[in-house]
Amino acid sequence: MARPLLGHLDPEFLSMMDEVRDMLRRTFKTANETTFAVSGTGSAGMEAALVNLLEPGDIAVVGIAGVFGERMAEVARRCGAQVREVRAEWGTPIEPARIVPHLDGAKVLAFVHAETSTGTRQPVEPLASLGRDAGAMIVVDAVTSLAGIPVETDAWGVDVCYSGTQKCLSVPPGLAPITFSPRAVEAIAARRSPVQSWYLDVSLLTRYWGSERVYHHTAPISMLLGLHEGLRLVLEEGLETRWARHERLGAVLAKELDALGFEQFAQDGFRLPQLQAVRLPGGRDADALRRELLDRFDVEVGGGLGPLAGTAWRIGLMGESCHEDAIEFLLDAIREVLG
Amino acid sequence: MARPLLGHLDPEFLSMMDEVRDMLRRTFKTANETTFAVSGTGSAGMEAALVNLLEPGDIAVVGIAGVFGERMAEVARRCGAQVREVRAEWGTPIEPARIVPHLDGAKVLAFVHAETSTGTRQPVEPLASLGRDAGAMIVVDAVTSLAGIPVETDAWGVDVCYSGTQKCLSVPPGLAPITFSPRAVEAIAARRSPVQSWYLDVSLLTRYWGSERVYHHTAPISMLLGLHEGLRLVLEEGLETRWARHERLGAVLAKELDALGFEQFAQDGFRLPQLQAVRLPGGRDADALRRELLDRFDVEVGGGLGPLAGTAWRIGLMGESCHEDAIEFLLDAIREVLG
Repeated sequence: MARPLLGHLDPEFLSMMDEVRDMLRRTFKTANETTFAVSGTGSAGMEAALVNLLEPGDIAVVGIAGVFGERMAEVARRCGAQVREVRAEWGTPIEPARIVPHLDGAKVLAFVHAETSTGTRQPVEPLASLGRDAGAMIVVDAVTSLAGIPVETDAWGVDVCYSGTQKCLSVPPGLAPITFSPRAVEAIAARRSPVQSWYLDVSLLTRYWGSERVYHHTAPISMLLGLHEGLRLVLEEGLETRWARHERLGAVLAKELDALGFEQFAQDGFRLPQLQAVRLPGGRDADALRRELLDRFDVEVGGGLGPLAGTAWRIGLMGESCHEDAIEFLLDAIREVLG
Repeated sequence: MARPLLGHLDPEFLSMMDEVRDMLRRTFKTANETTFAVSGTGSAGMEAALVNLLEPGDIAVVGIAGVFGERMAEVARRCGAQVREVRAEWGTPIEPARIVPHLDGAKVLAFVHAETSTGTRQPVEPLASLGRDAGAMIVVDAVTSLAGIPVETDAWGVDVCYSGTQKCLSVPPGLAPITFSPRAVEAIAARRSPVQSWYLDVSLLTRYWGSERVYHHTAPISMLLGLHEGLRLVLEEGLETRWARHERLGAVLAKELDALGFEQFAQDGFRLPQLQAVRLPGGRDADALRRELLDRFDVEVGGGLGPLAGTAWRIGLMGESCHEDAIEFLLDAIREVLG
């Protein structure tokens, strides 16, 4: 990202963008032509997914079991959609059977793969399969999952999948990788009304990212150089190797936290290795100790959100930070602050 | 931007953000509390300005004399506004008197200060004054003007002013500085409907940028570090000194281009020093020679847009690139490719 800038229509920059698209396809496990990076953070990816698919009056079924599911519902409502919320308790996945009664007439079924607020993994394929059977487009938030645990966009039948750069891709925040299936692209082409966001209108964006190279907005050049390098490192390691690394080291961390008396919040069997939401032993003050970790050891863990506020930490073990020595350093620091 | 990352809620990062806000206020020449950077490029700033102020059915008067005026009208339409377009010939400013008949009942008067597609300066104060007299909010696009020529947000009575980082601020593209007057904030608080964009909802964004620090989306940390340094350099030089530098060196470039037979496109008296749209001498092929400049001398000039396509260049002389030696290097290269 410290490289000198190139113009956003410079041939050298454009060929770098082609490589980014190609590497994103491999990372998302998709053949989708319409694969690129939105010029905003993960939440801009969420908005881009929903704002392009939904028109006023459309029905969107949204699975909610944490902050980011809530956000999807809110964004869908702001698109003028009728939102049917299917809620599960925080820390548990949404059971596929509970989705079915809500799918009639739905244009979109949207849910979060890896809920960052709870450390819970939502199995994608069963929900996606039911949604597609009912004729809905499947929108999946893979902000915290992409390049950390398996994401199989095409094999799972996902129509729109988006992520962020600052989680398991280990790139600074600022871009939202996104991919649209041909079915989604057709649905967007058949809209009755213009997409309410000009900035996020995928039909305009793909004219820049595609071979036409029609100017839309100035691309965030340095961010894209950072993403290019991040994706190169992901694919150099190999997705399967990277998934296995997160799985293995996540288990190591979980075991050690358990021994220290921490309690995992997410339901057993649905825990994310790369984001562990844990209640502190003995009802200790989570925020005070979190601050102490930062001040004394320069280690940052996330605070609890919603029902977890003040009582839990969310520990990220993502991408470059998912290494033995980082875990050891963290555990030593935790032992110190717990006293 | 190559600095190691801080968390987006890390106290050290938050105090850096306070400094960014303070420096933005000084650069925009405003006391507006609601001053921050949108996590997207200049076009996201445009969308943030309009999407927060406009509700379906509102009347927006938009001045159009180039690509970016057209874009403002398009974005306003996508907010559901009734758009009244006031057009001037490309290369000329909009005469204040022509706005007046359209202002009745208008909620917003929006126009571009420095039209990047034509190199034309629109005097802001006369339009803003008429608009405010008629009760409209004044929205000004200062993407190419901020920190290059005088921008006086408060003195001119501008309600929402936005910019981009990659023009006269000399920071990579990726953020859109923006400021909202107290009047604009009140109007937003009085909306009947939610802002259609969750990502750009200023009421949510200011809860993160303000003292509450409520999490909204993950800030693009590295970009903000870059903006911090860019603003620091702007204020170290001093705004008046910087404006004078652009004015003086812009005149040098204009005189030399004239001597080489180039023809300025913008009307005399309304030309931007920092962005000069010029037709090539003798009807030479603008795009072929532009490519030659890039390939042989690694110098990029912009192509002509709209009526200027294929026949003109747009030469940027902004921020760090606005220096004697850059002008000399460019002129030498131009003499070579013209042969």
